[in-house]
Amino acid sequence: MPYSHSPQYHFYKQSLSLLTDLYQLTMAYGYWKAGFTGKQAVYHLFFRKNPFGGGFSVAAGLESAIDYIQNFRYDSSDIDYLASLRGYDDQILFDPAFFDYLSGLKLTCDIDAVPEGSLVFPYEPLVRVSGPLIQCQLLESPLLNLINFPTLIATKAARICIAAMNDPVLEFGIRRAQGIDGALTATRSAFIGGCTATSNVCAGKLFGIPVKGTQAHSWVMVFDDEETSFQTYAAHMPNNCILLVDTYNTIEGVKKAIEVGKRLHQEGKKLIGIRLDSGDLAYLSIQSRMLLDEAGLHGVLIFASNDLDEIIIDELKKQGARIDVWAVGTRLATGGSQAALDGVYKLSAVQDPGGPWKYKLKLSEQQIKVSNPGILQVKRYFHDGYYVADAIYDILMGLPDPGIIVDPFDATKIKGLNKKWESRDLLIPVFREGKCVYETPSLAHIQMMAKKELSMLHNSSKRFLNPHTYVVGIEKNLYDLKTQLIMGLRQ
Amino acid sequence: MPYSHSPQYHFYKQSLSLLTDLYQLTMAYGYWKAGFTGKQAVYHLFFRKNPFGGGFSVAAGLESAIDYIQNFRYDSSDIDYLASLRGYDDQILFDPAFFDYLSGLKLTCDIDAVPEGSLVFPYEPLVRVSGPLIQCQLLESPLLNLINFPTLIATKAARICIAAMNDPVLEFGIRRAQGIDGALTATRSAFIGGCTATSNVCAGKLFGIPVKGTQAHSWVMVFDDEETSFQTYAAHMPNNCILLVDTYNTIEGVKKAIEVGKRLHQEGKKLIGIRLDSGDLAYLSIQSRMLLDEAGLHGVLIFASNDLDEIIIDELKKQGARIDVWAVGTRLATGGSQAALDGVYKLSAVQDPGGPWKYKLKLSEQQIKVSNPGILQVKRYFHDGYYVADAIYDILMGLPDPGIIVDPFDATKIKGLNKKWESRDLLIPVFREGKCVYETPSLAHIQMMAKKELSMLHNSSKRFLNPHTYVVGIEKNLYDLKTQLIMGLRQ
Repeated sequence: MPYSHSPQYHFYKQSLSLLTDLYQLTMAYGYWKAGFTGKQAVYHLFFRKNPFGGGFSVAAGLESAIDYIQNFRYDSSDIDYLASLRGYDDQILFDPAFFDYLSGLKLTCDIDAVPEGSLVFPYEPLVRVSGPLIQCQLLESPLLNLINFPTLIATKAARICIAAMNDPVLEFGIRRAQGIDGALTATRSAFIGGCTATSNVCAGKLFGIPVKGTQAHSWVMVFDDEETSFQTYAAHMPNNCILLVDTYNTIEGVKKAIEVGKRLHQEGKKLIGIRLDSGDLAYLSIQSRMLLDEAGLHGVLIFASNDLDEIIIDELKKQGARIDVWAVGTRLATGGSQAALDGVYKLSAVQDPGGPWKYKLKLSEQQIKVSNPGILQVKRYFHDGYYVADAIYDILMGLPDPGIIVDPFDATKIKGLNKKWESRDLLIPVFREGKCVYETPSLAHIQMMAKKELSMLHNSSKRFLNPHTYVVGIEKNLYDLKTQLIMGLRQ
Repeated sequence: MPYSHSPQYHFYKQSLSLLTDLYQLTMAYGYWKAGFTGKQAVYHLFFRKNPFGGGFSVAAGLESAIDYIQNFRYDSSDIDYLASLRGYDDQILFDPAFFDYLSGLKLTCDIDAVPEGSLVFPYEPLVRVSGPLIQCQLLESPLLNLINFPTLIATKAARICIAAMNDPVLEFGIRRAQGIDGALTATRSAFIGGCTATSNVCAGKLFGIPVKGTQAHSWVMVFDDEETSFQTYAAHMPNNCILLVDTYNTIEGVKKAIEVGKRLHQEGKKLIGIRLDSGDLAYLSIQSRMLLDEAGLHGVLIFASNDLDEIIIDELKKQGARIDVWAVGTRLATGGSQAALDGVYKLSAVQDPGGPWKYKLKLSEQQIKVSNPGILQVKRYFHDGYYVADAIYDILMGLPDPGIIVDPFDATKIKGLNKKWESRDLLIPVFREGKCVYETPSLAHIQMMAKKELSMLHNSSKRFLNPHTYVVGIEKNLYDLKTQLIMGLRQ
């Protein structure tokens, strides 16, 4: 049995090979019927815009993608189902001989990818798949599903953590996340982006992420009065005592929590914190801090929640809110204002057996939908502790020294790559001939890496409003080839 | 072993009891320590606003919730994990004796719910859970996770199908859905809301939803020219031939598709359709239709895709677009402009052993966050084939005849319930003392029911812009009791 990195994968009982769009299978069938089993191809997974109007993205999802690929197989129930499908004319869709091909299919692709936690920018390949055309095609939908969403959420979390300025951010999104795995994947991705803990116990069990919790309104409401509810909680949970103070009246709630806090301190125990979940969080947190401090409870933390996101946290910070811990739910776990990364998976080269690579691109009336041809790699340049530019280049054409890059959408924007800059390639080998050659780092390591990556990005690109566009260019020779291909196709 | 309605549930290998917020477990622990194991409670799951600024919602997710509850148990790995947890002071969080309680826990709640496919409106309970307080509390996070998202997507799908005016709508969202189960649950919910088919093969296999597909750009790009790509596809897939025409130039692509279509027709076969995926879909579909008709290909369908949603479809319809089949992906499968339903789960009554019910509500500085007390049911009134009003009432206080309802937020808006109206209760028994007493209808039946429900809602409430607010009131005696409780708590 294949070795699996991700505990999450084991959540699923069955083969997930059918977790794909039908057209991947019908196209695979067409390629197979057309005798294209020996044809090779190269595809790249990339997105066209940083989410949330931001200036960066944080790659995530590779671990699940590796597990998906390692467990890829068509089992008998998959085949039975496919055999039951009919076309628009109600005739069977697939020639049964195709199922022998599918049943025996072993993935033999080479896959290169950007490690989780890496900073990525529009048009940079996050994943490159090369190998038999049919295999590459079959991986499109699952790879997009498994990379798009985690990258969206890791990016959202990074933005929220930037707004929180090193305060702890807790991910509390399970109740409104998009399904069971929507919640679990969001939690893992949020941790990559910098969250310190989650409320999702299952994610704690599966991924080893610290779990934290506070108290809900229902605890308070179960009792006849708020005092009794707080006292009872403190009595039974002295090592996890965070009191929710806004069930009836926030300031009155804080005063009652203070009484409990004083008593706990007299007993040598500790009130960990209070939580604010409604109202003006700036005003209420300032008032609460004052009351707590007046009572000598300087160490009692103020937790805040209530549809928070990076914009609201940023505003609250500007208004002097005295919040110590940010509990962020819905808008983190779902992306909030943007629910999907616009990642795509595009063919960029094909090769007949024994023939040369033919470079491919898709035209479009929408310029941003024109794809890049070639077998691509990204070189990232850095200098004085900061990233300065990325070059998308073709690995066969190479990257001349000194290199020149061109803006993908403005041929007049040309930049020379300084010889003094250091650099490294972003895509690293993950599969070779279908065999995994990559060891997924621990989640804690991935989180640390994302943090380091973000520290190397200029603050101007981390701004929420009109961030500076980090320079990503296409290596000049590749750019010229792309232009030629476009001109040829337009004729 | 418990009987499971939903094939989806079986997707998961392990106990999902830990799919919850940590505070549910710490509160359960607190109740247990405080000796509240005999205390009874009533909770309701409801939302506060129809999503997407709309005038209605379509309930979904009950089937998964039933499966969750039927499979609810803490297995040894869950207990081991919980035993490893530490509080803020690094001491163990739970007294080990609590684990005996959890291991032996059997759910014995009564649960009533609105069937999937029902129309629901703000503040109406979708689910009522009554039974031992600890059990009710433990179900909060999973129920919210399992109901919020499906309801969001079923509603989105219904809106999209309304915009499409009976044209088929295909759900194509897997590639940008929020995780594996985000995709599968979205597909099932979209089908409930009225979609006719999905591209998600796994959803087809699990739920029996029809699967459909077209062709991707990569098929076209693999070949040296578009003509050859179309011809090869038609040769090998004559019973599923839909050609994507915008890879290089849409109108040229249509002309090439027409050549293929003519040849297929000569051979007694059929070009099913063409797909437009970029550019001005109104203009291009009108031009395409003209060209197809001129060639005598009147029966060839025009499929359209490209970040569609109800608003865009509505606009395209207004502009005379000649689109026959709408393929809707990202904005359907994720909710698009709104990624989460704001469903909550609130305590409304508690009862000590042998004592009377005490009705409960949560105050808030935000009026819409004040919850309703009681043990609630919703009666829906209809007349002349249309729904006219809903009354939220307390089952112990009953609904006087003739009933009077009050707007939840405006005491001056009072409405008498006409004796001539017919009515029915929305919540029906699903569990009695932990035993499932409800048989989930087939998905096709649920879809049909949603369609019928929508046909009984006035068009004015189905409008996208400023829809008419369907009348939902609180039965007057309950309203008065609520006011008294609020006044008491405010003092």
